[in-house]
Amino acid sequence: MAESSRPNWARRVQATTLSLARRHLDALVVSNPTNVRYLTGFTGSTAWLFVAPTGSRLLTDGRYAAVVRHGINTGELLAMELDIVESGYDRALADVVSRVSAKRVGFEAGTLTVSGLRRWQELTPGVDWQPTDDLVENLRLIKDDAELAALRRAGRMLAQVATGLAGIVGYGRTERDIARAIDAALEGVGFERPAFETIVASGPNSAYPHARPTDRRLATGDLVVLDFGGVLDGYCVDLTRMAAVGSIDSAARSLFDAVYEAQRAALAAVRVGVTSSDVDRAARSWLENRGLGPAFCHGTGHGLGLEVHEAPRISRAESGQVTTLAPGMVFTIEPGAYLEGTGGVRLEDDVLVTTDGCEVLTTCPSGLMVV
Amino acid sequence: MAESSRPNWARRVQATTLSLARRHLDALVVSNPTNVRYLTGFTGSTAWLFVAPTGSRLLTDGRYAAVVRHGINTGELLAMELDIVESGYDRALADVVSRVSAKRVGFEAGTLTVSGLRRWQELTPGVDWQPTDDLVENLRLIKDDAELAALRRAGRMLAQVATGLAGIVGYGRTERDIARAIDAALEGVGFERPAFETIVASGPNSAYPHARPTDRRLATGDLVVLDFGGVLDGYCVDLTRMAAVGSIDSAARSLFDAVYEAQRAALAAVRVGVTSSDVDRAARSWLENRGLGPAFCHGTGHGLGLEVHEAPRISRAESGQVTTLAPGMVFTIEPGAYLEGTGGVRLEDDVLVTTDGCEVLTTCPSGLMVV
Repeated sequence: MAESSRPNWARRVQATTLSLARRHLDALVVSNPTNVRYLTGFTGSTAWLFVAPTGSRLLTDGRYAAVVRHGINTGELLAMELDIVESGYDRALADVVSRVSAKRVGFEAGTLTVSGLRRWQELTPGVDWQPTDDLVENLRLIKDDAELAALRRAGRMLAQVATGLAGIVGYGRTERDIARAIDAALEGVGFERPAFETIVASGPNSAYPHARPTDRRLATGDLVVLDFGGVLDGYCVDLTRMAAVGSIDSAARSLFDAVYEAQRAALAAVRVGVTSSDVDRAARSWLENRGLGPAFCHGTGHGLGLEVHEAPRISRAESGQVTTLAPGMVFTIEPGAYLEGTGGVRLEDDVLVTTDGCEVLTTCPSGLMVV
Repeated sequence: MAESSRPNWARRVQATTLSLARRHLDALVVSNPTNVRYLTGFTGSTAWLFVAPTGSRLLTDGRYAAVVRHGINTGELLAMELDIVESGYDRALADVVSRVSAKRVGFEAGTLTVSGLRRWQELTPGVDWQPTDDLVENLRLIKDDAELAALRRAGRMLAQVATGLAGIVGYGRTERDIARAIDAALEGVGFERPAFETIVASGPNSAYPHARPTDRRLATGDLVVLDFGGVLDGYCVDLTRMAAVGSIDSAARSLFDAVYEAQRAALAAVRVGVTSSDVDRAARSWLENRGLGPAFCHGTGHGLGLEVHEAPRISRAESGQVTTLAPGMVFTIEPGAYLEGTGGVRLEDDVLVTTDGCEVLTTCPSGLMVV
């Protein structure tokens, strides 16, 4: 990663310690691996971060010792103390808590399991463990400059892959072959890996929103859902386009048109101050008015970042997860409709909320691609 | 999957309800996705299973409705009731609990988060939520016939890929190219996907146990760690072999020899009735006696099954995770030693504990492959 786009870890940790102070906490134990990565740059599988106003400590095991020391020295990682775990993470954490005499310590209630908390409590008599909710996630909700640079670049790369789909999707090829070719194209443009298992769902399979690629060969009259994403510097982007094999029947065509317009309606609804459920409503009303309400069996979108599904959820108010949109939020807009017998349609783009509306990160044609 | 090797879901659920009865629980909510898969065959990303003596109910959302109904009808999935979640999993669960008048309900304390439990408690006044630990995991620890069939077949396939490494690893190729070729070979023999990100670590990179493939080209004198695995019918196998590029120095050769013998010692220690830490000790003593104790910075192995890291852990007694070996347990034996300056060595095979010793599932040469 170029020096200029290197994340400002210290600033992210500073924002975290500010919210600790507001909650009268002496420290916070970050155990969500994605949050650890966001705050420190550590990309291994196992580490906990102990954040306190006096400084941060990373607890990790011998597998990562050398690479973390190197990263701290070069500034690729947060400037922090390193504790190498020898006999269990729980015990190592208890040692740190006791060493710094922290009394009121926050934990991530959305990550720590009930048995994890029980173990910490047993090992730290006298410590008051306080649940915190989405403390780091709320920072991650608004992307900073380094994140936006990665997401914008990733969006352009994904659009490039989408533009090449015409050379990949064809009559007689199997879903699996096409998925493999898409994965190769993702790597070819520079993604470190696919963001999830690429979906290629044709004909009857397209009626299943989360179908896995099979050995089915594309046949005339098929609708084909092509849903794929890539990871760049840890950041995920996600896109869905539709193909039709030869001529499709009018029911399939109407289904496509309805989803196409629903997506446009949702994209047009994205702006600062509206809620995530308003955006969902824009797509959902359009489909409901065409009798496709029950066929739209998922939410309109999900946040993108270090995780391919993160906040904000763009879904019905009834889901209980309503977010007021603010500049710097990045999420997908992906209405769909699925009818057994006819097939399924989904169209998906990634957007960034800006002060004056929304910026589409995946700019490329979204019309029905006839192959 | 052939009819004959189809898992007996009903028997697994029956074993679960037996342990509920022993704990005086009316029901258990299984929220660990791997446990849901183990008990029902459901392979989607989100579902909870409500297990009660009167029958099991799967809670999942519209995305999976059609495929689950189909699976129940064909017997690919457990015979169970299906609840389609409309406005939130927590609420749907509370409805089920109230409908069946369950009063004392177990949850998986190792999976459910602190905030998840808080939500359930708020939505189900009067219900006594009881933590359970590893209730389903303890069943998964001993593989049944369907699982052993998958693991044995997967082990043979992985050995086949290992045998072909000589055609893949060569002077001047990059780590990334080799990793890609290994992934293609995994798919070529029939794995559904790699079990984890393939590790190809050469020269100085080999000193990092969890290195990711880079664009470094193999050079004369390199030690090369090749660690890869595959997933077959959901079951994971995992193997590591070592290559040397041209002639290596005597320090590297001694390192290889020490790890080779440490692995043999650990394999020889595997039998019914010994503990997982005894097996770790066999490898560790060998390395410690050669001054390589600190260079062996991880455990000797980990269980294999629906997860690539599961119980039992084969590690030091001090880790607190000691398991007495019993027939049907499957795990890796993978001692390693890592020295900055010299490089790293790891050798890994997968074994099944049998009544009369241990069966190696990945039978193929493990000597140093000179390329």
